[in-house]
Amino acid sequence: MTDASGPATGDDGFHVFDTTLRDGAQREGINLTVADKLTIARHLDDFGVGFIEGGWPGANPRDTEFFQRARTEIDFRHARLVAFGSTRRAGVRAADDPQVAALLESGAPVVTLVAKSHDRHVELALRTTLDENLAMIRDTVAYLTAQGRRVFVDCEHFFDGYRANPAYAKQVVRTAHEAGADVVVLCDTNGGMLPAQIQAVVGTVLADTGARLGIHAQDDTGCAVANTLAAVDAGATHVQCTANGYGERVGNANLFPVAAALELKYDRRVLPAGALAEMTRISHAIAEVVNLTPSTHQPYVGLSAFAHKAGLHASAIKVDPDLYQHIDPEQVGNTMRMLVSDMAGRASIELKGKELGVDLGGDRELIGRVVERVKERELAGYTYEAADASFELLLRAEAEGRVRRYFRVESWRAITEDRPDGTHANEATVKLWAKGERIVATAEGNGPVNALDRALRVGLERIHPQLARLELVDYKVRILEGKHGTGSTTRVLVTSSDGRGEWSTVGVADNVIAASWQALEDAYTYGLLRAGVEPQE
Amino acid sequence: MTDASGPATGDDGFHVFDTTLRDGAQREGINLTVADKLTIARHLDDFGVGFIEGGWPGANPRDTEFFQRARTEIDFRHARLVAFGSTRRAGVRAADDPQVAALLESGAPVVTLVAKSHDRHVELALRTTLDENLAMIRDTVAYLTAQGRRVFVDCEHFFDGYRANPAYAKQVVRTAHEAGADVVVLCDTNGGMLPAQIQAVVGTVLADTGARLGIHAQDDTGCAVANTLAAVDAGATHVQCTANGYGERVGNANLFPVAAALELKYDRRVLPAGALAEMTRISHAIAEVVNLTPSTHQPYVGLSAFAHKAGLHASAIKVDPDLYQHIDPEQVGNTMRMLVSDMAGRASIELKGKELGVDLGGDRELIGRVVERVKERELAGYTYEAADASFELLLRAEAEGRVRRYFRVESWRAITEDRPDGTHANEATVKLWAKGERIVATAEGNGPVNALDRALRVGLERIHPQLARLELVDYKVRILEGKHGTGSTTRVLVTSSDGRGEWSTVGVADNVIAASWQALEDAYTYGLLRAGVEPQE
Repeated sequence: MTDASGPATGDDGFHVFDTTLRDGAQREGINLTVADKLTIARHLDDFGVGFIEGGWPGANPRDTEFFQRARTEIDFRHARLVAFGSTRRAGVRAADDPQVAALLESGAPVVTLVAKSHDRHVELALRTTLDENLAMIRDTVAYLTAQGRRVFVDCEHFFDGYRANPAYAKQVVRTAHEAGADVVVLCDTNGGMLPAQIQAVVGTVLADTGARLGIHAQDDTGCAVANTLAAVDAGATHVQCTANGYGERVGNANLFPVAAALELKYDRRVLPAGALAEMTRISHAIAEVVNLTPSTHQPYVGLSAFAHKAGLHASAIKVDPDLYQHIDPEQVGNTMRMLVSDMAGRASIELKGKELGVDLGGDRELIGRVVERVKERELAGYTYEAADASFELLLRAEAEGRVRRYFRVESWRAITEDRPDGTHANEATVKLWAKGERIVATAEGNGPVNALDRALRVGLERIHPQLARLELVDYKVRILEGKHGTGSTTRVLVTSSDGRGEWSTVGVADNVIAASWQALEDAYTYGLLRAGVEPQE
Repeated sequence: MTDASGPATGDDGFHVFDTTLRDGAQREGINLTVADKLTIARHLDDFGVGFIEGGWPGANPRDTEFFQRARTEIDFRHARLVAFGSTRRAGVRAADDPQVAALLESGAPVVTLVAKSHDRHVELALRTTLDENLAMIRDTVAYLTAQGRRVFVDCEHFFDGYRANPAYAKQVVRTAHEAGADVVVLCDTNGGMLPAQIQAVVGTVLADTGARLGIHAQDDTGCAVANTLAAVDAGATHVQCTANGYGERVGNANLFPVAAALELKYDRRVLPAGALAEMTRISHAIAEVVNLTPSTHQPYVGLSAFAHKAGLHASAIKVDPDLYQHIDPEQVGNTMRMLVSDMAGRASIELKGKELGVDLGGDRELIGRVVERVKERELAGYTYEAADASFELLLRAEAEGRVRRYFRVESWRAITEDRPDGTHANEATVKLWAKGERIVATAEGNGPVNALDRALRVGLERIHPQLARLELVDYKVRILEGKHGTGSTTRVLVTSSDGRGEWSTVGVADNVIAASWQALEDAYTYGLLRAGVEPQE
């Protein structure tokens, strides 16, 4: 282990650099919209990374839009936004290269330039000379720094290149450094390295060039986290990672175990105070946005990471849990699962109640009932972490001893029909009671859920005109068990808005329509509660 | 990297020791029958590990039965069977301890004894003195070796124990070694170590005790593979791993990347000739037995481990794939895959065609048409990187100038209805033409998509009996634009199986039912294509 030298968070001595939005998005199965990218950027900023690489403006219209919107829509508290691009093309001036211009136009204060450092790649992929490649690096770095940008240089395929031609690989580092790059990042692009190799090469390059070095590791040997730490041991002060290790092929160095190792094992402050305790929540939230099930076995943040199965140790764990855990799970916002103590559950329910303005007044019996109810529902597939409004309805039902109802559902029906011209007809009928009146309403929509939503609104709007402002703004479907085909349990999360705020509700059922209906019912009920309407069926 | 010293496979110089059946089975969600254990043991023997730890006979009736049956039912070619147990209880003779007797009765030629090496654990969990713990180790090792067994000793919580009381931890190693244990295994039971720490401690213990050392690493820091290799670097010659890294909490050191690193990166022969090329198949087969989806992002063996997305590199990959891969995937029985994404260029389409067995013969005009078609479809929300079968249908349609059709859809309809008792009815009707015949079929299901799937099968099965084997094994829904509520575009991915293989198809539409229907249509069409059926509407 290296010592704990190096400056604390907030200053520039050590960089936690996140590239989820650029390199992480290369993972098979990830396809991010601009809205997804903005949401992830907010989570990463909450986590306190120093740099967020947002994408390649100019190369991809979605990335261009991301930089435009991020500038105005996100007020970053910790992170600086980074645009990624390549050195100028061979044979043109940096100032004349439209790809370089797009980096400036992005407005990002920091630019990462990818540069070739493996001689064969220069010849085969770039199809230029080794000297011109150096000139491309020198010119582009100099041009961007002259324009007031801070520049980092990613040396692609550095470790393979170093093995093939160490003199040239080091020449690339020196060139970038001398041209004004603040950090030169050594990339194990193919991911084939092991920690001992990384440590030796980083140490040598640092001694020979004097450049500030960073590390970008891929996980092809299953060693990306260890490779990142090995580079730090050798003197690197900039680590490039992705949330949950997302990335091409096997993935990238996982931000979370890297940050946790630096904070907890190296005793080095690389995150703002309190951020590490948010790690589990943020990891899961980002998984939700990219629509991948959070890995239950991920180090530190997985559901199983602190789950103790062996009954063998139960009594000893009670005496001293530290004997059986390498860290206190609360340090990373996770919990030990064998001892899911009622106290812990109770305390968090009470806190949550306070946050929602429902005073549980320390009523132990009531809090116990809520804990039981939540456990039972989560076992069935509900999740309240992302559905505050459904949780508040559950909490109020227990606290007030009655369920708030503004309408009672007699039945509903949704029909989707394929028409000979290739279009679809979606029609829904709902039968309801509200304020003692029976209502039958039918509506069409562009899908069965949309048709149900409209029928519900058409039916209720006359009695509850507040619903006119209600709008569904997000809709997510998750199939809970992967191995049962279309017979699986389905969870739907719906986010609604009334123009003044947003709230989320959840539904779980054996099919997507029924799960959506549950989430819609909660969404409407909560909308009326927010509007201050008195319950009346 | 250490040198390649140490004897080759078959002799005793280096041990690949597998504990999937004992420690791996601690993973949350794994529950193995005796038949499962026998099947996994056969796969591990095929892979060529030197030792298979089968369980704890006596402590668990299933494990006792496993050892009985393994002796008669498996003819091990490479592996020796190992029984796991603990040192004798405090205050009894080893010969009088029924738990020790069960180890002998198992008939296993090798025994691993778990021993405490952390002073606090001796006091708190074992509730005996430090001296009695040493006597327990000495007696049990001596007794079992006198009975003709080869004995390895697992020092539980060794690294934490070494930190707390290095003298006692080393005393435990010396005691086991002097009593006749062939290998003393240092266990990072809590999994909190990092490679630099492991390497330092293993080196010191080796120098101070002269015992032959092994390593047992858990993955709580995400470094289990690197920790195992760090111990080898420091002189350990026995590595304990589990298939796919299964194990308690986050898991154990993963057998496959450890074996691959030793063989390919250390150039050390630790497996029989040819075994490494079976690694991908064996990894997936074991996942099937334990009923977990094989991790697509596992190093070396994952479906994505050699998948290339960026169209950017495709032309260079064609020239020299070694520039973009750390090893040749065939060395581990995996294959390079080109992902068809919206960055797809001509080169990657041509490579993809080859991979699917569709020869585009360098036909520039045809390849251009496919590129255009893919771009247009991906813009509409399709994704082909996760839907190889839909891509192959598209490719064949362009290459063959006609769409393969086994049936023509006249119309379909799905109805979901809420019933007064809270249950739901789902009914679907399809109207089709196949082999000139008009078919009308209706079926019920647990959701509208399931009902459509059943109706389609009921309708087609008489004409295409091959469909009887077809099964949906996975179903994923993604709403494509986050900010349009239930009016968004929906993408559905369906994975189907015919018992011999799996394939994935995609559908995109303005609602989930219509998108699912498209994916189902492709799934059935591809299933019939795979079965060699001639198209006929």
